[in-house]
Amino acid sequence: MGSNSFGHTFQISTFGESHGGGVGVIVDGCPPRLPITSEEIQADLDRRKPGQSSLTTPRQEDDQVEILSGLFEGYSLGSPISLIVRNKDARPSAYENMKSVYRPSHADYTTDAKYGIRNWQGGGRSSARATIAHVASGAIARKLLALAAGIEVVAWVSEVHGIGSTVDMDRVTTADVYNNDVRCPDASAATAMEAAIHNARKNQDSVGGIVTCVARGVPPGLGMPIFDKLEADLAKAMLSLPATKGFEIGSGFGGTLLTGSEHNDAFIPGEGDQKIATASNRSGGVQGGMSNGQPIFFRTAFKPTATISQTQNTVDQAGNATTLEAKGRHDPCVLPRAVPIIEAMTCLVLADHWLRQRSVDVLPPLG
Amino acid sequence: MGSNSFGHTFQISTFGESHGGGVGVIVDGCPPRLPITSEEIQADLDRRKPGQSSLTTPRQEDDQVEILSGLFEGYSLGSPISLIVRNKDARPSAYENMKSVYRPSHADYTTDAKYGIRNWQGGGRSSARATIAHVASGAIARKLLALAAGIEVVAWVSEVHGIGSTVDMDRVTTADVYNNDVRCPDASAATAMEAAIHNARKNQDSVGGIVTCVARGVPPGLGMPIFDKLEADLAKAMLSLPATKGFEIGSGFGGTLLTGSEHNDAFIPGEGDQKIATASNRSGGVQGGMSNGQPIFFRTAFKPTATISQTQNTVDQAGNATTLEAKGRHDPCVLPRAVPIIEAMTCLVLADHWLRQRSVDVLPPLG
Amino acid sequence: MGSNSFGHTFQISTFGESHGGGVGVIVDGCPPRLPITSEEIQADLDRRKPGQSSLTTPRQEDDQVEILSGLFEGYSLGSPISLIVRNKDARPSAYENMKSVYRPSHADYTTDAKYGIRNWQGGGRSSARATIAHVASGAIARKLLALAAGIEVVAWVSEVHGIGSTVDMDRVTTADVYNNDVRCPDASAATAMEAAIHNARKNQDSVGGIVTCVARGVPPGLGMPIFDKLEADLAKAMLSLPATKGFEIGSGFGGTLLTGSEHNDAFIPGEGDQKIATASNRSGGVQGGMSNGQPIFFRTAFKPTATISQTQNTVDQAGNATTLEAKGRHDPCVLPRAVPIIEAMTCLVLADHWLRQRSVDVLPPLG
Amino acid sequence: MGSNSFGHTFQISTFGESHGGGVGVIVDGCPPRLPITSEEIQADLDRRKPGQSSLTTPRQEDDQVEILSGLFEGYSLGSPISLIVRNKDARPSAYENMKSVYRPSHADYTTDAKYGIRNWQGGGRSSARATIAHVASGAIARKLLALAAGIEVVAWVSEVHGIGSTVDMDRVTTADVYNNDVRCPDASAATAMEAAIHNARKNQDSVGGIVTCVARGVPPGLGMPIFDKLEADLAKAMLSLPATKGFEIGSGFGGTLLTGSEHNDAFIPGEGDQKIATASNRSGGVQGGMSNGQPIFFRTAFKPTATISQTQNTVDQAGNATTLEAKGRHDPCVLPRAVPIIEAMTCLVLADHWLRQRSVDVLPPLG
Repeated sequence: MGSNSFGHTFQISTFGESHGGGVGVIVDGCPPRLPITSEEIQADLDRRKPGQSSLTTPRQEDDQVEILSGLFEGYSLGSPISLIVRNKDARPSAYENMKSVYRPSHADYTTDAKYGIRNWQGGGRSSARATIAHVASGAIARKLLALAAGIEVVAWVSEVHGIGSTVDMDRVTTADVYNNDVRCPDASAATAMEAAIHNARKNQDSVGGIVTCVARGVPPGLGMPIFDKLEADLAKAMLSLPATKGFEIGSGFGGTLLTGSEHNDAFIPGEGDQKIATASNRSGGVQGGMSNGQPIFFRTAFKPTATISQTQNTVDQAGNATTLEAKGRHDPCVLPRAVPIIEAMTCLVLADHWLRQRSVDVLPPLG
Repeated sequence: MGSNSFGHTFQISTFGESHGGGVGVIVDGCPPRLPITSEEIQADLDRRKPGQSSLTTPRQEDDQVEILSGLFEGYSLGSPISLIVRNKDARPSAYENMKSVYRPSHADYTTDAKYGIRNWQGGGRSSARATIAHVASGAIARKLLALAAGIEVVAWVSEVHGIGSTVDMDRVTTADVYNNDVRCPDASAATAMEAAIHNARKNQDSVGGIVTCVARGVPPGLGMPIFDKLEADLAKAMLSLPATKGFEIGSGFGGTLLTGSEHNDAFIPGEGDQKIATASNRSGGVQGGMSNGQPIFFRTAFKPTATISQTQNTVDQAGNATTLEAKGRHDPCVLPRAVPIIEAMTCLVLADHWLRQRSVDVLPPLG
Repeated sequence: MGSNSFGHTFQISTFGESHGGGVGVIVDGCPPRLPITSEEIQADLDRRKPGQSSLTTPRQEDDQVEILSGLFEGYSLGSPISLIVRNKDARPSAYENMKSVYRPSHADYTTDAKYGIRNWQGGGRSSARATIAHVASGAIARKLLALAAGIEVVAWVSEVHGIGSTVDMDRVTTADVYNNDVRCPDASAATAMEAAIHNARKNQDSVGGIVTCVARGVPPGLGMPIFDKLEADLAKAMLSLPATKGFEIGSGFGGTLLTGSEHNDAFIPGEGDQKIATASNRSGGVQGGMSNGQPIFFRTAFKPTATISQTQNTVDQAGNATTLEAKGRHDPCVLPRAVPIIEAMTCLVLADHWLRQRSVDVLPPLG
Repeated sequence: MGSNSFGHTFQISTFGESHGGGVGVIVDGCPPRLPITSEEIQADLDRRKPGQSSLTTPRQEDDQVEILSGLFEGYSLGSPISLIVRNKDARPSAYENMKSVYRPSHADYTTDAKYGIRNWQGGGRSSARATIAHVASGAIARKLLALAAGIEVVAWVSEVHGIGSTVDMDRVTTADVYNNDVRCPDASAATAMEAAIHNARKNQDSVGGIVTCVARGVPPGLGMPIFDKLEADLAKAMLSLPATKGFEIGSGFGGTLLTGSEHNDAFIPGEGDQKIATASNRSGGVQGGMSNGQPIFFRTAFKPTATISQTQNTVDQAGNATTLEAKGRHDPCVLPRAVPIIEAMTCLVLADHWLRQRSVDVLPPLG
């Protein structure tokens, strides 16, 4: 499988640089007869696109999706669904000075080291613009999960530059999240976060933070016991996103401060369909790599945006010391636009595992 | 690729349950002409095996590796190298009461939910014993990295139940790590950690902590810009290990407290072969998914061992409330034995990406 | 890997139906710094497109390729190269009567059986139009092979409806092949074949035949000893093309009539770079799945085109007997247009194995 | 996926050389709760083992299978099933003269060219002994197909050195096939074939031939429309076997002599469960890569055994002309022992596609 693909049974293959024809994705493995419209895909893309508010980059891109194949009369055919979004508001001239000078903590230098060639007219393949492919394909995964499995995925900005929030993850909705420009359902926290982001922009600086995501309604048994654990695939998905530096599920790093007797989730009789539940959920909904029917939740750390307007020390391609002043448009904080991307990757992981389980559970029960 | 396999070009396929014939691994994609001995593999297995010290489980397993194929006169043939370790000191009777009662925060329930069948005579496929396969194959990857690329990988226990340590990650050696039973190169921290572990055992309880790992000598350009980022593959590798709940690379979660100007790693002229270096290393040696020539370092969080001797509330297979008293032998803290496993997974990821880069860098330089 | 992808290291992922937005392909794994132009890709597409001569379907499609990503200033970037060709001369109305009536020996019925939905406005995903993706990506593989490895691939129509030909496969060139509309370098055979095709069209019927392909300059050692044998991957590639029913390499089915002493290729001292050669080449250039430095050649059988203008007995979706008169435009013989497709698949297989060998041959020679 | 693996969802990973510890296979993706015994696996291995009759090599190997993992109380667990067979009757001394002299039409030279190292004590990884892994894992696939899908697979020797046979492929059984040592259900043909094989041995020579295989009970819709066509995966499977040179499905090469009106399979109303059938089956049970509910049948060509006792011209490793007299034990005709191998590969392909279809057919019918 190519390195621009993700997933096993529900698989995406992506392409595109920030400056060039466009970006896109092929979804291979979406089951036939799924009703899906370009409007549903566009709705998720609109939550990702630049220029949504004063908190994001002023780069204007409509990011209109075009469906080239795989659908017929509103339903998936079972053949690959291909989606493209053309680049429009590209301004390569803004990057002229980056042709031979490396931006600190960007991928310019490592791209040259790896490939010996680089499209310097922007971030190239390493641009966050590439995540359009994730969001567009994730919208299809989301629809499949909702329709076939009753699974829903919601993410939100839970922390910005140390400012935390309080959110009820059993009940939070996308509408709650989109109540403000920060995409944090805790209104007072959101106000403080917004101020921190404006402050960073004013200082020609940037800030990072944490996105929390929850998946509700996941049936027990999804995921694999060894490498393709649900948390392992989620970790890979999240760490493959631009600017991410950490992932934790359930109790995470904080769990290392508890003893086993404090940390273990006691099993209790369940309710309704699910005859077994847990009294607590420090496991974060997965045990031994497989879902246990409780909400799956995890947190992803984003570093502060690497692009800042301040003059920075760096080197040129020859290794000579120089300075750089960034001119491209950029977000002082990527968190608000990261929310739909995190959700998309989560949907892709869950749709894949849900489909994989279809080929596990095929023989009659024992005895 | 099956869910019990890992890697793209240097690929392992693993098998085995804790109770049954044994566990093992096939390494497919090891280049021919690599000198490797069963002693080198055994040395890493011995660092993982139970019964090493008073800090670990008293389960006695020699864990002697047998090489079934792939070597000839001390060199790899290019064909699959298969390694098996037989199970010996299995005591299924100790697990009799777990036949129909689920251990809290273990994989018993999720295994039943997924497969509708379970080898209840131990942890089955979810036992940490399965990581023998990781360590045995990782030893081969380690040899390839050392010999062909000059890369070295060292991990250590950096935190136990909140007790931290100070370690110079540019210089720490395996000998430093193995100076004590905790596997922490900071001697005074190790003493405190050891006390904490003994205390936990005394209380019929358990503790968790953090393992830090560093890879030195990684050339710039390994890793991929999109899904198969070096940090993404490392995150998946670490979160696929038993009892792990979090992963962070470079600045990690702490990096969210800095601004961009504080966080960015300024480029500076390098020394010797490497003409470009960085003044700091908050990136953790990867930028945009690809190595930048600086040491790669990351931290993995382990929850406290789920198996504790205290009586716990739980349910049986039918969902009825009951209690459980664990009888199996177990580690009050998995960290000391996790060190070689973390190293092995790191070696597997790096060997894979180093080989993948061989098929990237094939055409002459431009201009 | 999705079922619409092909290859391991040089991998393509394809999409598109005959009627809909278009067809296309992503090439993932093309090494960076390969010079390639859309004109080179278009040249191969033009050899595949309909309407080239009186022997092919009158359907007019320009089949102009658009490159959406992966190139910069004439060179590959190492990131995915995406190519699309839009559908233009689609006439769904011609297929109206096939909405619920199955064309004999087509994929209409099996598509319905598999997916429970079908784009009846043409052949959908099973249309030969999908092979545009193969040819476009194959052109890139061809360029890599020529430039980096000195490998060349030539195919030709060697048999039509039992009319054979005589061709010197050590010397035949693409120019020889394209001397006539049949794409057979044996001029007198071509005349007879052309007459047979015109005759078939006149009779509202169709004919099949055989395409032979040779790859010259393949170094010894490409291919794998077990499943990914060169001949196995070539066989899969060829049998994955529309209308193919057989594949044979070297002596093929005819080789079953020889004894071992007649069939074996004696090794002899080689010339120039290659110190070992063979006195005969009944192996077809591969031994034990790996190339031996001799020309690789194989033959692929194509059945007569399933679409014919005669009235045929068939059933409708409900299983009721009915008759069908095909109205779509179609080729009385697919062979002439199959030549560049066979070449493309061969180039894809060889480029993949050539790149895979880069990660095999990395350690110094023994002794 | 490594080159020693085969299959997508039902996947095998194989290992082992002819001389060394042994050969084996991991089956990853077998659904849980499948009843399977080592006796069932052994039964298929016994049909492959050497020394069955005067027609095969006198090499004596019990080829006893050991199951190391994946089963519990007679049922599959869903975890990898690992099977090993140890090498016993190895006589490396018989190969001493092949250490530096290449056997014509064997893989000795290509192995050296590829890997720069070779286990010269036999055929190494290219030995037909490696197919033990195919047969052992194929037995599990066969059980799954029989139990879950009602599919049965039967192969037989249909031609030896030009001597053909007449077999009713709708009714032929394994018992019919194993009525004689040649494994040809046509008794009079079998007698002639047997004579031909004995004659070849007497002449220190060898013969080849054709194995035909039929799969009955395959439901419509298995297979994929593009690369992973059923016939493409079967072709790859067959051409990956030692000594195979050709594959044809349905009408095959002979189909090129028919016109479309002669070749097309008219659809007709079906009977019982299957409401649609075909009047003829020149398609060989697949149309557009997907099964159509008719018997799937195909033929595989085997060249005459490369190992013959006559003195042959060849070269040594340095490329100097020399001669070789084979001393190893070998089959004058591989066909009789190839029958279970062909069946195994067919079962593996079908089990994989049957499982893959489980994740395709998940949404409710339209309308």
